[in-house]
Amino acid sequence: MNFSVNKNEFFNNLQIADHAISSNSPQPILRGILISAKEGQLTLTGSDADISIQKIMKADEKNQLNISEEGSILIDAQYLMQIVKKLDSEIISIEIIDGSLTKFSGSSVVFKINGMNTDDYPTIDFSKPMNSIKMDAAVLSDIIDQTAFATSLKETRPVLTGVNFNLNNDQLNCTATDSYRLAKKTIEFKSDVSFNITIPSKSLNEVRGTILMNAKEIEIAQNDKKAQFWSEDMVLQTRLLDGGYPETERLIPSEFSYTMKISREDLIHAIDRTTFIKNDNMTINRLQCSSDEVILTNKSQEIGESHENLNAVFTGEPLDISFSGTYVMDAAKALRGSEIIVKFTGEMKPFILSCDEDTTILQLVLPVRTYN
Amino acid sequence: MNFSVNKNEFFNNLQIADHAISSNSPQPILRGILISAKEGQLTLTGSDADISIQKIMKADEKNQLNISEEGSILIDAQYLMQIVKKLDSEIISIEIIDGSLTKFSGSSVVFKINGMNTDDYPTIDFSKPMNSIKMDAAVLSDIIDQTAFATSLKETRPVLTGVNFNLNNDQLNCTATDSYRLAKKTIEFKSDVSFNITIPSKSLNEVRGTILMNAKEIEIAQNDKKAQFWSEDMVLQTRLLDGGYPETERLIPSEFSYTMKISREDLIHAIDRTTFIKNDNMTINRLQCSSDEVILTNKSQEIGESHENLNAVFTGEPLDISFSGTYVMDAAKALRGSEIIVKFTGEMKPFILSCDEDTTILQLVLPVRTYN
Repeated sequence: MNFSVNKNEFFNNLQIADHAISSNSPQPILRGILISAKEGQLTLTGSDADISIQKIMKADEKNQLNISEEGSILIDAQYLMQIVKKLDSEIISIEIIDGSLTKFSGSSVVFKINGMNTDDYPTIDFSKPMNSIKMDAAVLSDIIDQTAFATSLKETRPVLTGVNFNLNNDQLNCTATDSYRLAKKTIEFKSDVSFNITIPSKSLNEVRGTILMNAKEIEIAQNDKKAQFWSEDMVLQTRLLDGGYPETERLIPSEFSYTMKISREDLIHAIDRTTFIKNDNMTINRLQCSSDEVILTNKSQEIGESHENLNAVFTGEPLDISFSGTYVMDAAKALRGSEIIVKFTGEMKPFILSCDEDTTILQLVLPVRTYN
Repeated sequence: MNFSVNKNEFFNNLQIADHAISSNSPQPILRGILISAKEGQLTLTGSDADISIQKIMKADEKNQLNISEEGSILIDAQYLMQIVKKLDSEIISIEIIDGSLTKFSGSSVVFKINGMNTDDYPTIDFSKPMNSIKMDAAVLSDIIDQTAFATSLKETRPVLTGVNFNLNNDQLNCTATDSYRLAKKTIEFKSDVSFNITIPSKSLNEVRGTILMNAKEIEIAQNDKKAQFWSEDMVLQTRLLDGGYPETERLIPSEFSYTMKISREDLIHAIDRTTFIKNDNMTINRLQCSSDEVILTNKSQEIGESHENLNAVFTGEPLDISFSGTYVMDAAKALRGSEIIVKFTGEMKPFILSCDEDTTILQLVLPVRTYN
């Protein structure tokens, strides 16, 4: 292998592949980026076994890629990124000189780095499944922003660590829940395709950090083992979470006895003010509502208490309800628009946050029981 | 105690006192900021027993301080900072309502926070020792920037964790060493005062982060137990390090057989490029010099090697010397000016980095023995 390339362009492309790599992977081979130079293009592959990214660099005027000898090498991603970033010329050249010993040349600087044997690298099947849809990148970005935060961090029910994508009858439902809260995005989506898959939220965050940065349209292909996110010059592939996703529809109440309207920003600030007052490391807010006033409090034996009159409009009988402030704040942040509508069915019943300006998204939070 | 004050001004002043506090102090009482309202001014005190800061807020138009009842309270610094930052009005009021329970009021928000008993707070003697000098803040800033990094991080010889300030015969010598390298700043300083004290580098970093940010002139007062840094409205006080500071003068060679001149920036970049190649977690660079060429290399069995032709002018017989790249880079960064002069006396002898543009500062580094 022997090629020369524009340093900055190469670095930017390596950064994409590097996203899939965890530097502390127990398998040293997975700490490497696979560079393959073939038929006038570079293919850069990174993988942590759960997520794999393949980035293509076709020779063009900007990257000035020039392959004089085809081949491939696997180099530790950390060293590779350092070297490419720091080489002292605009065009750099990379050449295998002996076995896997690889020479990186700038103008007066040369690095000779021990590569790894490409034969040991796992075979990653990037073949595209038949079943695929195309989606606007901005829509996918919204789905991730508005749901992924609500997935579970605990591995006790692995399927809850992902977002469920359910496409059926021209409707795409994206649902995330950690069983204390739920985020659901519903989009009209005309398609002959249907699927019901759960994608790890970690993978979705990588999708946001890589392919969504540069593409306008994303193709999502899937089978029962994997999902792929394609743009013109890259693919991110992720394993799916096994196990049926719980039926969440029945959790969402449809009749409400109490309604509160409040500025989204005011609600976020009011809760944020009280977050330093913790009980068992949780921020628990109490909301006392009547048609006269809405009061938000937070109390801890050790620290003290907060008390705030919210500028909110409440309709219904007086209501006294407590919840995780962090959950309600997360939900409010994920909604769009300036005003939030909170609908309650009772003091120990789940409640819903939504907004009129974007009816595709619904946030549900379970109250907590307090003893003060 | 009962006073009202401009929120942002109060917060900025609290931040200064907060610098002295370590949030994980084993003594809960030292996690608090002592607020004392008396004779038309607030005194804010923070301390971690080694460093103590006292910040004065005199009532003025900007801070709109209005004390309606004198008194004092001790509040956990973390809560205090959060509350003041997040209160919802420009002017806030703070009042002791019951014992040490303290009420913080904004416009629609009220916090009632458990304070701590001020009687338990250690008595900190801020009285000013007789022996004092005045110094330009920029000069003190330079001293700290150019020396403090070279102090030892290990507690095996505590006196080496500080910078030695030796004022005598109209000359101020500031010396830092970890016994592998040494930084020395020498300033002509006319004064009747003389002293020889060692100030913890941690304290000097706090001096840089607080009093040096706002003052033009600093008064340094000291006795054999403490040093104080005074500006108009604050004082930072630090304990001194016990024990005689080693005689370092004899370590500094005065005759040299080899000289290298190099751009400061080039040297820093050249070493920086190689820092990912480590041996036992250290960056060891080898410099091979002759009048024809100067080559910087770095080699590790595991990773590989680097090789760079430096654009440097070397005079003397050929020389082959190895050193900690990090130390040489630190030293180069601490020098001023665009060109560095490196003077060697031999392959296993300490060498000196200096520059013509600022002759007050000298950096010394010991070579390391390598076996390749």
